[in-house]
Amino acid sequence: MNIKDIEKLLTDVKSGHTSVDDALSTLKDFPYTDLGFAKIDHHREVRTGYPEIVYCTGKTIEQVKEIFRVMVIRENNIIGTRASREMFDAVKEIIPDAVFHQAARIISVQRKKQEAPVTRIAVITAGTSDMPVAEEAAVTAELLGNEVLRIYDAGVAGIHRLVDKLPDIRTCRVVVVIAGMEGALASVVGGLVDKPVIAVPTSVGYGANFGGVSALLAMLTSCSSGVTVVNIDNGFGAGFSASMINKMK
Amino acid sequence: MNIKDIEKLLTDVKSGHTSVDDALSTLKDFPYTDLGFAKIDHHREVRTGYPEIVYCTGKTIEQVKEIFRVMVIRENNIIGTRASREMFDAVKEIIPDAVFHQAARIISVQRKKQEAPVTRIAVITAGTSDMPVAEEAAVTAELLGNEVLRIYDAGVAGIHRLVDKLPDIRTCRVVVVIAGMEGALASVVGGLVDKPVIAVPTSVGYGANFGGVSALLAMLTSCSSGVTVVNIDNGFGAGFSASMINKMK
Amino acid sequence: MNIKDIEKLLTDVKSGHTSVDDALSTLKDFPYTDLGFAKIDHHREVRTGYPEIVYCTGKTIEQVKEIFRVMVIRENNIIGTRASREMFDAVKEIIPDAVFHQAARIISVQRKKQEAPVTRIAVITAGTSDMPVAEEAAVTAELLGNEVLRIYDAGVAGIHRLVDKLPDIRTCRVVVVIAGMEGALASVVGGLVDKPVIAVPTSVGYGANFGGVSALLAMLTSCSSGVTVVNIDNGFGAGFSASMINKMK
Amino acid sequence: MNIKDIEKLLTDVKSGHTSVDDALSTLKDFPYTDLGFAKIDHHREVRTGYPEIVYCTGKTIEQVKEIFRVMVIRENNIIGTRASREMFDAVKEIIPDAVFHQAARIISVQRKKQEAPVTRIAVITAGTSDMPVAEEAAVTAELLGNEVLRIYDAGVAGIHRLVDKLPDIRTCRVVVVIAGMEGALASVVGGLVDKPVIAVPTSVGYGANFGGVSALLAMLTSCSSGVTVVNIDNGFGAGFSASMINKMK
Amino acid sequence: MNIKDIEKLLTDVKSGHTSVDDALSTLKDFPYTDLGFAKIDHHREVRTGYPEIVYCTGKTIEQVKEIFRVMVIRENNIIGTRASREMFDAVKEIIPDAVFHQAARIISVQRKKQEAPVTRIAVITAGTSDMPVAEEAAVTAELLGNEVLRIYDAGVAGIHRLVDKLPDIRTCRVVVVIAGMEGALASVVGGLVDKPVIAVPTSVGYGANFGGVSALLAMLTSCSSGVTVVNIDNGFGAGFSASMINKMK
Amino acid sequence: MNIKDIEKLLTDVKSGHTSVDDALSTLKDFPYTDLGFAKIDHHREVRTGYPEIVYCTGKTIEQVKEIFRVMVIRENNIIGTRASREMFDAVKEIIPDAVFHQAARIISVQRKKQEAPVTRIAVITAGTSDMPVAEEAAVTAELLGNEVLRIYDAGVAGIHRLVDKLPDIRTCRVVVVIAGMEGALASVVGGLVDKPVIAVPTSVGYGANFGGVSALLAMLTSCSSGVTVVNIDNGFGAGFSASMINKMK
Amino acid sequence: MNIKDIEKLLTDVKSGHTSVDDALSTLKDFPYTDLGFAKIDHHREVRTGYPEIVYCTGKTIEQVKEIFRVMVIRENNIIGTRASREMFDAVKEIIPDAVFHQAARIISVQRKKQEAPVTRIAVITAGTSDMPVAEEAAVTAELLGNEVLRIYDAGVAGIHRLVDKLPDIRTCRVVVVIAGMEGALASVVGGLVDKPVIAVPTSVGYGANFGGVSALLAMLTSCSSGVTVVNIDNGFGAGFSASMINKMK
Amino acid sequence: MNIKDIEKLLTDVKSGHTSVDDALSTLKDFPYTDLGFAKIDHHREVRTGYPEIVYCTGKTIEQVKEIFRVMVIRENNIIGTRASREMFDAVKEIIPDAVFHQAARIISVQRKKQEAPVTRIAVITAGTSDMPVAEEAAVTAELLGNEVLRIYDAGVAGIHRLVDKLPDIRTCRVVVVIAGMEGALASVVGGLVDKPVIAVPTSVGYGANFGGVSALLAMLTSCSSGVTVVNIDNGFGAGFSASMINKMK
Repeated sequence: MNIKDIEKLLTDVKSGHTSVDDALSTLKDFPYTDLGFAKIDHHREVRTGYPEIVYCTGKTIEQVKEIFRVMVIRENNIIGTRASREMFDAVKEIIPDAVFHQAARIISVQRKKQEAPVTRIAVITAGTSDMPVAEEAAVTAELLGNEVLRIYDAGVAGIHRLVDKLPDIRTCRVVVVIAGMEGALASVVGGLVDKPVIAVPTSVGYGANFGGVSALLAMLTSCSSGVTVVNIDNGFGAGFSASMINKMK
Repeated sequence: MNIKDIEKLLTDVKSGHTSVDDALSTLKDFPYTDLGFAKIDHHREVRTGYPEIVYCTGKTIEQVKEIFRVMVIRENNIIGTRASREMFDAVKEIIPDAVFHQAARIISVQRKKQEAPVTRIAVITAGTSDMPVAEEAAVTAELLGNEVLRIYDAGVAGIHRLVDKLPDIRTCRVVVVIAGMEGALASVVGGLVDKPVIAVPTSVGYGANFGGVSALLAMLTSCSSGVTVVNIDNGFGAGFSASMINKMK
Repeated sequence: MNIKDIEKLLTDVKSGHTSVDDALSTLKDFPYTDLGFAKIDHHREVRTGYPEIVYCTGKTIEQVKEIFRVMVIRENNIIGTRASREMFDAVKEIIPDAVFHQAARIISVQRKKQEAPVTRIAVITAGTSDMPVAEEAAVTAELLGNEVLRIYDAGVAGIHRLVDKLPDIRTCRVVVVIAGMEGALASVVGGLVDKPVIAVPTSVGYGANFGGVSALLAMLTSCSSGVTVVNIDNGFGAGFSASMINKMK
Repeated sequence: MNIKDIEKLLTDVKSGHTSVDDALSTLKDFPYTDLGFAKIDHHREVRTGYPEIVYCTGKTIEQVKEIFRVMVIRENNIIGTRASREMFDAVKEIIPDAVFHQAARIISVQRKKQEAPVTRIAVITAGTSDMPVAEEAAVTAELLGNEVLRIYDAGVAGIHRLVDKLPDIRTCRVVVVIAGMEGALASVVGGLVDKPVIAVPTSVGYGANFGGVSALLAMLTSCSSGVTVVNIDNGFGAGFSASMINKMK
Repeated sequence: MNIKDIEKLLTDVKSGHTSVDDALSTLKDFPYTDLGFAKIDHHREVRTGYPEIVYCTGKTIEQVKEIFRVMVIRENNIIGTRASREMFDAVKEIIPDAVFHQAARIISVQRKKQEAPVTRIAVITAGTSDMPVAEEAAVTAELLGNEVLRIYDAGVAGIHRLVDKLPDIRTCRVVVVIAGMEGALASVVGGLVDKPVIAVPTSVGYGANFGGVSALLAMLTSCSSGVTVVNIDNGFGAGFSASMINKMK
Repeated sequence: MNIKDIEKLLTDVKSGHTSVDDALSTLKDFPYTDLGFAKIDHHREVRTGYPEIVYCTGKTIEQVKEIFRVMVIRENNIIGTRASREMFDAVKEIIPDAVFHQAARIISVQRKKQEAPVTRIAVITAGTSDMPVAEEAAVTAELLGNEVLRIYDAGVAGIHRLVDKLPDIRTCRVVVVIAGMEGALASVVGGLVDKPVIAVPTSVGYGANFGGVSALLAMLTSCSSGVTVVNIDNGFGAGFSASMINKMK
Repeated sequence: MNIKDIEKLLTDVKSGHTSVDDALSTLKDFPYTDLGFAKIDHHREVRTGYPEIVYCTGKTIEQVKEIFRVMVIRENNIIGTRASREMFDAVKEIIPDAVFHQAARIISVQRKKQEAPVTRIAVITAGTSDMPVAEEAAVTAELLGNEVLRIYDAGVAGIHRLVDKLPDIRTCRVVVVIAGMEGALASVVGGLVDKPVIAVPTSVGYGANFGGVSALLAMLTSCSSGVTVVNIDNGFGAGFSASMINKMK
Repeated sequence: MNIKDIEKLLTDVKSGHTSVDDALSTLKDFPYTDLGFAKIDHHREVRTGYPEIVYCTGKTIEQVKEIFRVMVIRENNIIGTRASREMFDAVKEIIPDAVFHQAARIISVQRKKQEAPVTRIAVITAGTSDMPVAEEAAVTAELLGNEVLRIYDAGVAGIHRLVDKLPDIRTCRVVVVIAGMEGALASVVGGLVDKPVIAVPTSVGYGANFGGVSALLAMLTSCSSGVTVVNIDNGFGAGFSASMINKMK
């Protein structure tokens, strides 16, 4: 609902194409559905390029189901992150074509094919244990219409595994680097490629890892330029941002 | 037991209306009941406007039950927060009119109707997952005699949902804003209304949320004036303070 | 610019009282002055009850001076917090009736008398070293039109000093408690009065005080109901919130 | 094994009362029993006034049992802290007169009556939920031969409950104050009595309590003199130190 | 020095175009100049798209001067960040066309015009005090060849100042949001535009701001999708990443 | 003003020895002098065994001087801690017999000789750099009437220096251990003596010392029984508590 | 794949012993096996002296099994740390000679005897509860071919237990010190022996121990020279580093 | 003073070669000089291989001078770390051959040549700003008799600068890696060499670097084996430990 929309509305009111009441109602009725416990934001796609994403953790199974029930009426595609299998089972009862991406903990409904950019997104992990976060990033990016190159377990303890994949990585438009422990992989990749690097610290590790804080701080203080960071374990956020960049024209 | 009470007591002693022993006993017997494991403060209502609130977590079921048993004799209304259903079941055995507010985790006994102010309290959440804390705030405020306007899931990712409700919010006398993650809603509301805003950070989120610390710090450092803050997830505290302000004459 | 204003604008457009261009311009021209380095928000008073407060720290002397120069044209009263004497000297050059409240580090211009409520605000400190923060709170409240009762150095190490003042404190409508070190005074006051308590932790102390964190945490976890908290050393915020509550009708 | 013991040994060697080998063996054989996984320190009583205390958490049931089995041979009294019932059951199999203090989580074997000082130790808690820690302190002090005055649930939200007990508290030689949340009770007690106060922060609370950190910091930064602090939830440590002071001659 | 370069080298060796010694020397002589205290990485532009950036803080004036002296021989453009005027004066002695961007604390030498993309980068700050960081971001982006839209002092306490600029912001390809205190602006912008948002927390604020940590955490836990974060006060990093994205084809 | 005093007062009122007005005035006039910026607590000695201690940091020179001026009228002895030489010079102008203990940063006025216990207090430091804190502890204890045994620079890196002094230390009634860095000395002393150990962490060290936090945490988690802790660098607190214990009868 | 290998390869290419394609393939085929979820680094032994260690936590049982299955083909010895019994059972199905070291949580396959140095490694713990970490260190060192001297429960609360073992400890070439709580043992050992000390903080303790942080900080700030530190509970890391040092020639 | 020394002493006493008094005096007179403010540990070299190192920070110039004055009498070599030029000037007055290593902030007196091992120590830094810490490490190692290979500014943003030096690094016996910011260099080096790596985090950086904490945590949680860590900026500690390892036989 930007300044242009308001101008159009005012013109319509003046010309009599729209009554004051209708105009007011339009302005008042920003497009969302109020379920009491949730306000489904149908306007999100227009505003930020994709329908509202449902963050499932902390919601009851019934709430998740109800949100999907309402969204499926107006949105073509739905993504629910951090979902449990129980949530999926409940959603599937009412939306049989819903899909559960187990490793990524994502429920998706996909009825409109996203436009696919020709470029790819690289998703690289330091270790095998970083895979759940990586899958959240990769599946998110794929559901948003991107092709993803997965490179898992290429941490700096055996850096030749990364170097070996550099030519492939350099064909991608944006790189997501996912690492726990000391998170050094983000700096190393950032020093080797000329693409935006989105770094995702993970909670993989123990002791002075502090649930991912060590990797987070390391990524934030990276000596390599071109590295930006998202929250610990936030595969979704990295996948979403990478998609935004990859789909740029 | 303020200075006036002491003056009265001294006069009574001097005039012979009260014996030294009785006066001493009055002074010694500040009104509380000592159960050994708990000292029920019957004087709290006189001093702070409402009977002692029972914080149930960390007490055994038997202790909660016993506290309710003793309080119901002298207090008209009782509120027990952070209660489990097991605690409620035990209380209900001896106080059949006790009520359990499940979402709010509150046990209440209400025998004297609280005087209701004409103004309302707004309780606004950023997301659906903030609801348990919001219900604790709302139910507390209601049990203390206030009318509550609930607006849930109006976070800044879809700020029009909040803007749409502003006229309603502005009819309230005090606003409770409840948000996890980055807690930005408190600042946004604080910038849009001329009412006291009580901000409640919640532990909703993950990673760099640190169990609500991010929202807490954000609310404490809010760039909007008129925002004060309570402890993480402390719906009760917000509801109580909001009630104090709303019931002002 | 609430929903009512928009309705009025639309009606005026329809009736021809306002042209589309003018309406658009009104909507675009939310009332602020853009200085490039600052956008003076002239609409703040309408929205939150008082003109924008100028937070001076981090601004250059020239910027502060320029902001005052622009504000004095449209606002009747101005408050600049965390100001240095150098900033004041610069402001005074162009606004001779500007006043510097040294202990409070506030520059004020006061041309319209604020409406004074009949009730008072109590500002209590635990120690003498908390005075700068207390003065910021007290002067802010006074500039906003309130009468303030100052009680300084009444910490819990000599609790009778507080008890002695309780009758006075109880005549106030809202209480600001300012304490560093362990911040226990907030809980003690909260347990003794039935007024909203706004607690201000200060950075007074050393070692495990961590620049006010100990007092902040103590106040947030206060066992007394009715206590809300503002940022460390944020005397202004407490004075502003207390004024909001004290001026309620 | 202080300098006097060495002098005696040297004299004995010189005079022929002790052979070089025997002396060497004495010096080498500091009195402890090595179980491989534990070295029972039989010399502790001589050195610090009481036999080694067994900290049971983190040990297997078999290890706890074996340590008690070995200690009971040479020590008259044994205290095992942070013990589970399963550990107690195992110990009881071999030491039928072992006692389990459930609330305090302590296993004790008491065969030699401790000399009882005429003075008492006060153990005061802010709330009911602090009781497990308080019992650990009280039972420890009692097992070490002290008489304990228990005052539970006397927090500052209802400070008259504490004031009422002051005369009793002042008859004690040392005071243990146990509080979670903001821990203000320690400062208040410290300001009212002229006895050493040992403050024990507890993990009672939530949110910004951070598992007892708030109370810990508050106690460390107490504005009252004469307050020293032990670790969060360390009832044993407080009871032990209080006993040391109470048994002084 | 990617796999293709090695293939080329090997072919040249085989064909005799390159001797083994020369090839070895090429491989050994990765293109950098070793000054002892610094190794100037002349290969950086090939690898990551821009010559090595000189981070001046922590280096002596002589070291900065020497690095510029060496770099100017082989690189066309040089950027030195976090520089003092003293450093600039020293550099200017040997490179008369060096420029000092005072607000941004950047020394630049620009001899080759960067290719300018048609799209712009928006740099938005919450307050005036965030300007030094914003200028570091804006000047960096400009030196890298981008056009920048500066919008300063548009924080959420007066959100209409931001809303007013939304149409302009939406014409940009990527948005840098710079905010101290609670950093809410990043979430609000992220909820209103469909562009990548790079959030820069600043150390502006006091108390519970903890030198920018509050804003950092808030930005990391933003409820809006499409927000990535760089280090506190890292205007350079944001400007560099924004440039990378803006210059994408 | 304990329960006995009130009983006495009531009896006097009844018998006519005291008028109601006088009694009320006594109760109202808890003995302190209100200077506006400070309330001198003349009752402190009765209540906690020593006159109020003046914590000078954060007070202006004029305030410190005024407090000493008022206190010297009614108290026989005064201690001002964390004082600067400038404060002392101001105090000396009006109290010529005031003494400045430079290393300890203490101003003292001593007109009544404290009763000296026959036992001593040991003050032990790990390093030379811990001396200022140690002197604050030692001078405090001496001003309170105790004899002090100073043992400086006996840290665990050369543990024989401590062992050598053990016989001396064991003649003391209470031991103050002062250490920065890792604070191990407290545990080692606690394991070797059967006296109460008051541990003072100092801010001596760098890096992961975090201004004394490492030593603080180490002392709080000491594996030795009988160790209690005061705030970082709080030599005064340790000296005061040690005196309390040493003067016990 | 160091510079010598490349030189050899280039010579072979030139001389025709190796074709360009083969050389390229060699360079591309750094020796690892890509399982998709893991890249087994067969080159690790050449590079760092031992095959890749499998960190089992965070991997599925199937992934651990598959990694062992692939490694056993090319490596003679395998170590899997932080393994569960379930993981071991799965591995044993396919590698019958796999061994599970329960206390150390290590799965090992040992087919080639490691060369044993004549010197030993001392592994010392402060308490019994530190044993799991100690066993991880000791078993790691043994699997790498070292002889280990275990000294458990020699903490500073009974320091003679350590002193008694000093002659034995001094026969070792490197010392691993493992302690939770305040971690003082590392400093004490570091002050008594002239060998490298590798300190391992453990999460043993509670409250202000913060999961091992207290011991970690204490060890990092040790006043004894020659102490280096590994991550909390990182017995493996200490055992590996100690082995590296012990096997030096 | 190990068990052998005591045995010898006892034998001498028995045989009459040593009197009881002399033996006692020997035992009492552990070899240190007590200056009151410091106890010079002359026994340190025997015990840990090198005379006591003087940590100068926090000592007065006079104290440093006096310590050097006493040490020079009995020790051949002296190292004083974290020294200021003023301290050096004072020392030089009495010890003309004292040397000041400015970059390393070390005062040394070297009268006995240390035995030089044939192997070298590599000291590698990530950036130029890490040089002061690196020099402290390198000079310490050199003063202890080692040859040092300095490689400065080889951080992972330009990793080929490190790779180029690998053959040289691999000729060293132990590697010290010094890095601020994210500290990734330690992990990368650890993954590429089969030598013990001693990692030194530095306080180089800003914002989320937190004075070196980010690098510290990254190094502690390194995914590479064989990495141990010392305190932030502790170049001395790393140099000392590296020397211990390098001088092993």
